[in-house]
Amino acid sequence: MSTREQCLELDAQDPLASLRNEFSLPEKLIYLDGNSLGVCPNAALERVHQVVKVEWAEGLVTSWNSAGWRALPERLGNRLASLIGAGENEVVITDTTSTNLYKVLVAALRVQAQRAPERKVILTERNNFPTDIYIAEGLAELLDQGYSVRLVDSPDELQRAVGDDTAVVMITQVNYKTGYLHNMSELTRLCHEKGALTIWDLCHSVGALPIDLKAAGADYAIGCTYKYLNGGPGAPAFVWVSPALRDMTWQPLSGWWGHARQFQMESHYEPAPGISRYLCGTQPMISMAMVECGLDVFHKTSMQALREKSLALTDLFIKQVEARCSSHPLTLITPREHIYRGSHVSFEHPHGYSVIQALIERGVVGDYREPHIMRFGFTPLYSRFVDAWDAAEILGQVLDSGLWRDERFMTRKQVT
Amino acid sequence: MSTREQCLELDAQDPLASLRNEFSLPEKLIYLDGNSLGVCPNAALERVHQVVKVEWAEGLVTSWNSAGWRALPERLGNRLASLIGAGENEVVITDTTSTNLYKVLVAALRVQAQRAPERKVILTERNNFPTDIYIAEGLAELLDQGYSVRLVDSPDELQRAVGDDTAVVMITQVNYKTGYLHNMSELTRLCHEKGALTIWDLCHSVGALPIDLKAAGADYAIGCTYKYLNGGPGAPAFVWVSPALRDMTWQPLSGWWGHARQFQMESHYEPAPGISRYLCGTQPMISMAMVECGLDVFHKTSMQALREKSLALTDLFIKQVEARCSSHPLTLITPREHIYRGSHVSFEHPHGYSVIQALIERGVVGDYREPHIMRFGFTPLYSRFVDAWDAAEILGQVLDSGLWRDERFMTRKQVT
Repeated sequence: MSTREQCLELDAQDPLASLRNEFSLPEKLIYLDGNSLGVCPNAALERVHQVVKVEWAEGLVTSWNSAGWRALPERLGNRLASLIGAGENEVVITDTTSTNLYKVLVAALRVQAQRAPERKVILTERNNFPTDIYIAEGLAELLDQGYSVRLVDSPDELQRAVGDDTAVVMITQVNYKTGYLHNMSELTRLCHEKGALTIWDLCHSVGALPIDLKAAGADYAIGCTYKYLNGGPGAPAFVWVSPALRDMTWQPLSGWWGHARQFQMESHYEPAPGISRYLCGTQPMISMAMVECGLDVFHKTSMQALREKSLALTDLFIKQVEARCSSHPLTLITPREHIYRGSHVSFEHPHGYSVIQALIERGVVGDYREPHIMRFGFTPLYSRFVDAWDAAEILGQVLDSGLWRDERFMTRKQVT
Repeated sequence: MSTREQCLELDAQDPLASLRNEFSLPEKLIYLDGNSLGVCPNAALERVHQVVKVEWAEGLVTSWNSAGWRALPERLGNRLASLIGAGENEVVITDTTSTNLYKVLVAALRVQAQRAPERKVILTERNNFPTDIYIAEGLAELLDQGYSVRLVDSPDELQRAVGDDTAVVMITQVNYKTGYLHNMSELTRLCHEKGALTIWDLCHSVGALPIDLKAAGADYAIGCTYKYLNGGPGAPAFVWVSPALRDMTWQPLSGWWGHARQFQMESHYEPAPGISRYLCGTQPMISMAMVECGLDVFHKTSMQALREKSLALTDLFIKQVEARCSSHPLTLITPREHIYRGSHVSFEHPHGYSVIQALIERGVVGDYREPHIMRFGFTPLYSRFVDAWDAAEILGQVLDSGLWRDERFMTRKQVT
């Protein structure tokens, strides 16, 4: 067990410590929910004023060109690319994760319809983030061509389940509940050996750990920008497609922004070459502009440095909670091995919901996920070692005191 | 021909004149492009600060509940409902117009698949806004069940074309090029008599004229909030479905926000009852919050009063242009009859692109649409009679002087 002083010393020696100054953080709050909604970059406060007051109110329609709004999906995509091992002009920021998943899922099934039309199974984990499963169900139902969604219950079962009937394996790289980190290279290689394509949902890994889509040979990737990337509430998502597959198919949300000649206003669709064909309609520019402020901070460090700190933080938190709270019924469901761990730590507790509510009142913001999961996200851009220590200590106090049994914490309300 | 003094007098007597003070407008600019991007409400300047500085930076993840983010799609939908003749809890603000069109198009085809599966034609106008056609093409291609998109070349041909094979008639109520206003009640009645369903794209009519979807018996409607509603660049769109049809089908962009029990995180999709099933993923909250500022202004007046002023403005502009510019090759393509006119006026000119560029430099912002169209939008919340007079005068000067022939206006650049 570490002492609080040791943690303060770790923070004092942390070469990334100054990055915390890039963000507007409420004083005294221990915010361990950046994996649900990242914090606000200081730059966003100025940038939003510029976008609304100058670009919208004064520039009006001319800002589509003069303020660069038109090219923002591509430009921000390029800004994000290095964080996920993508190349120039391979990523766009647009729409939502769910919508982008729909696009790449159709694209992947179309590729398979050309290569191996007998493959009709979309394979994923039962505890994948639900929207991924729902989108796949919605598409399978719509197509009415024998497609089905198959759910597996563990990473091992997933590997065994990839077979001759598998069209696509659709996996969230870091599981939103357990924090389990899938091995992208190995799983992609396995899928390709078995003839399946891969779709990687990077929501809980982008900005949290190094990702190299091209080195892994991945086929498709999507993800959000509002967690570790600190792009703002509900900020537009991203989509990447392997250049080898990108121009083989078009995607069915074929709006005018994905047209080869958008402003020719032609009466038939022709997909743009390249990743722009994954655009659809006009994007929410004020929210979109905020994404850049979050991305800029990442260019002041490296994902490798952030990963090292992230693992040190989650190691510390696991160790401290297990030492400080050993008399309470907490079960760690996040892997201890670094190669299988993302950047959040989840413990089960029979009354996880109430414990989380009590923690929030005590100034430690984690979140709750069904059925019993308390989730704590460590975001190495701004989380401190002393935060991990204090959070474990306050968790211990909440559990020791039984504070969480108070009626006000037992009543359910909805939290994202 | 009116005098400028008469126009100033009309403005002085205009009971809606004070509404202009609700907006932040660049001085001396005559902005006739609110039908492409509406102006910035003053309230938006304060609201955006609140959303970013207080709700995001300070409230962080708790703002999903405490700041009401979670319910914003429905709450703003209710705020919009009265402008389109929709009832309480019948509209949501979400995603883009293109994406929402995809959702309702699938829903309509599913209803027809139950009622009249032999109907396979999606009928629309060739000069409909292109994204509507593209989305229908994308869906027809995806379904691979014999669906096709049929394009007609006039409102008369449209009426004749509705037949036994028509599944859906998909029309933009006010044509983005000509400003032609379709009769929603008559066309809906005709479609229903012939067994077809109707989808109304309200992008160029919402906030510009009174709309009564329920009185017209319409089936589906979608539209944007960034034109006459002044919701901000690329602000999220809306979707309405007739309550009689709403719960008959689900839509394929079946993300977690449309689930019956979103936070139960179940592993199978079940659509929420009501219009919430048209939600998909997490929405861009900063852009979304701005929509409210635009909608609030409409609740200070009535669509009937706005319509009267709109027609007076477009009448004046047509009359002035035709008088002032009679020696130039201008062709009015907007209907003169009020019942067929929206709130923008379009003239063709052989060099429309260059004339518009020259006008913009002279401080009159209209926009250009292929092939030769100069489009001028009158937004009765803030357009003045003297603006219509001055715009016609400056157009006359630009044409008389040949200013538009200057090289800097002849070079094409892209404008939305």
